[in-house]
Amino acid sequence: MLSKANLTNRRTIHIEWGDCDPAQIVHYPRYLAYFDACTAGLFEKVGLPKRQMLKTYGIIGIPLVDLRASFIAPSRFSDTVVVESEITDWRRSSFCVRHRLFNRNVLAVECFEIRVWAAASEADPERIESKPVPREVIEMFSAKKDRNPARSKSKQEKR
Amino acid sequence: MLSKANLTNRRTIHIEWGDCDPAQIVHYPRYLAYFDACTAGLFEKVGLPKRQMLKTYGIIGIPLVDLRASFIAPSRFSDTVVVESEITDWRRSSFCVRHRLFNRNVLAVECFEIRVWAAASEADPERIESKPVPREVIEMFSAKKDRNPARSKSKQEKR
Amino acid sequence: MLSKANLTNRRTIHIEWGDCDPAQIVHYPRYLAYFDACTAGLFEKVGLPKRQMLKTYGIIGIPLVDLRASFIAPSRFSDTVVVESEITDWRRSSFCVRHRLFNRNVLAVECFEIRVWAAASEADPERIESKPVPREVIEMFSAKKDRNPARSKSKQEKR
Amino acid sequence: MLSKANLTNRRTIHIEWGDCDPAQIVHYPRYLAYFDACTAGLFEKVGLPKRQMLKTYGIIGIPLVDLRASFIAPSRFSDTVVVESEITDWRRSSFCVRHRLFNRNVLAVECFEIRVWAAASEADPERIESKPVPREVIEMFSAKKDRNPARSKSKQEKR
Repeated sequence: MLSKANLTNRRTIHIEWGDCDPAQIVHYPRYLAYFDACTAGLFEKVGLPKRQMLKTYGIIGIPLVDLRASFIAPSRFSDTVVVESEITDWRRSSFCVRHRLFNRNVLAVECFEIRVWAAASEADPERIESKPVPREVIEMFSAKKDRNPARSKSKQEKR
Repeated sequence: MLSKANLTNRRTIHIEWGDCDPAQIVHYPRYLAYFDACTAGLFEKVGLPKRQMLKTYGIIGIPLVDLRASFIAPSRFSDTVVVESEITDWRRSSFCVRHRLFNRNVLAVECFEIRVWAAASEADPERIESKPVPREVIEMFSAKKDRNPARSKSKQEKR
Repeated sequence: MLSKANLTNRRTIHIEWGDCDPAQIVHYPRYLAYFDACTAGLFEKVGLPKRQMLKTYGIIGIPLVDLRASFIAPSRFSDTVVVESEITDWRRSSFCVRHRLFNRNVLAVECFEIRVWAAASEADPERIESKPVPREVIEMFSAKKDRNPARSKSKQEKR
Repeated sequence: MLSKANLTNRRTIHIEWGDCDPAQIVHYPRYLAYFDACTAGLFEKVGLPKRQMLKTYGIIGIPLVDLRASFIAPSRFSDTVVVESEITDWRRSSFCVRHRLFNRNVLAVECFEIRVWAAASEADPERIESKPVPREVIEMFSAKKDRNPARSKSKQEKR
């Protein structure tokens, strides 16, 4: 099962007063800001803090092109939630990320992102172009998964 | 064509420095904040500024339950964009909103929201419950559409 | 009176639901985001939209170094407020801005900023250095003031 | 030394991409959002998570009335910073908070807040009134300090 083997990043988030709106629940754009940070956290986990990643690969970022989110249950200030994030698919110059936010172990928000590996155009530095995701980056996520020797071994055999 | 007859709100937005990220383009959670304001703008246009709407109908807000967005082209600080918003569907206790953000007349972001008409639960004021959207509110949007007599007449006949 | 002659930018701001916190009043960091936009608005008024200003003068921005604000009265979503902004002092490589936010003609927030004219260091592009504010930029603010011929004339005489 | 005895809350903050502006440094309103969370963290540390604090004492919040901040050095996404926060003064119905943000052990931002203990007016629930800070709340901060028996003892003697 490939999806089971995916590297997952878990981040605990304390919901702040300033993240909430007059209905006293998280204002949904703030969830998207959490998830943006969680995607960065995934790359940081494999050894690519965002600033270094941009420098190493000459990209301007990994901007979102597609977003879907379901808000199942509200969260409130002083709640502590956990976000589980994983990259579910690597494509040529884009990739898919899934975030699931749990409040007291109940799925409260689910979000799917498609992001592109993006660089400034050489012809016109004001333009942004998608670039192939470097093989090396994708492999960092696999290598990371393989750190658990028992599991990685059985995975190797399956291949 | 029902969708053509829908009341549309157009809002001009000046993109601010603080809405943009280190790639110098709008950080996508800010688009969602724009759209949240544009949905409120739709209700304000038919005579329901949000604060008054909450008081009149005893609701705590119109929280989002589902979101889809496509980010087609980036926008940058100092750009001026236009958002066209309309309610595309009324359901029993929820409704669908579509926002289209244009930058120099090119569609740059498209967003679909499903929101619920939500009140505090009487049994437990900390719980939020969906409530049927008042007929009166839906009619305000129709009434507004009918201000153009020629178009409203043909619509009446079709009914 | 020099301060009376200062170019003032007035901006009308509609306070959004998402700008407010669970106490149903503007969450104060959002006021600062308003004021940041209002400072940009001042430069835009004299013909320097921020993106063009950065390009023309080779700066990375006009970052804040000092901030003072008094929050006199709260504002709420659906309120419409007016911010009056002016540059109160030009120094060698910095300048002072005052913002006053009025809600129903009552002063609700007052804010004083000191900002620097900042460029990337030539020696180390990751470092930010202050630079002298170009004479030309300061003059744009004076020239603007002088557009009212009667007032500018009497000012000329006083000099 | 009273100030030395003050309860201090230290919070580690990972600076996110979305907290930064096109100059690639933290957009200053985000610092203020950090500090707002750090003030809440101080109360949480003595046993008053904000939601519980509001319920227990019947207040709507602890809104800011005065703010001063110095931005000494910029911070960037992927930086990890530490904020040290303490209440420096208790007044009748307000209190002063100082935040110092350190980046690699260098003071990067310093901020002083004056906040009020605020409740909805009984006469007009839309109005906000300051209330005396409960003795009990102030004592929680002292009690906390006294947990270190050696230090608390010498403090007792000095009184």
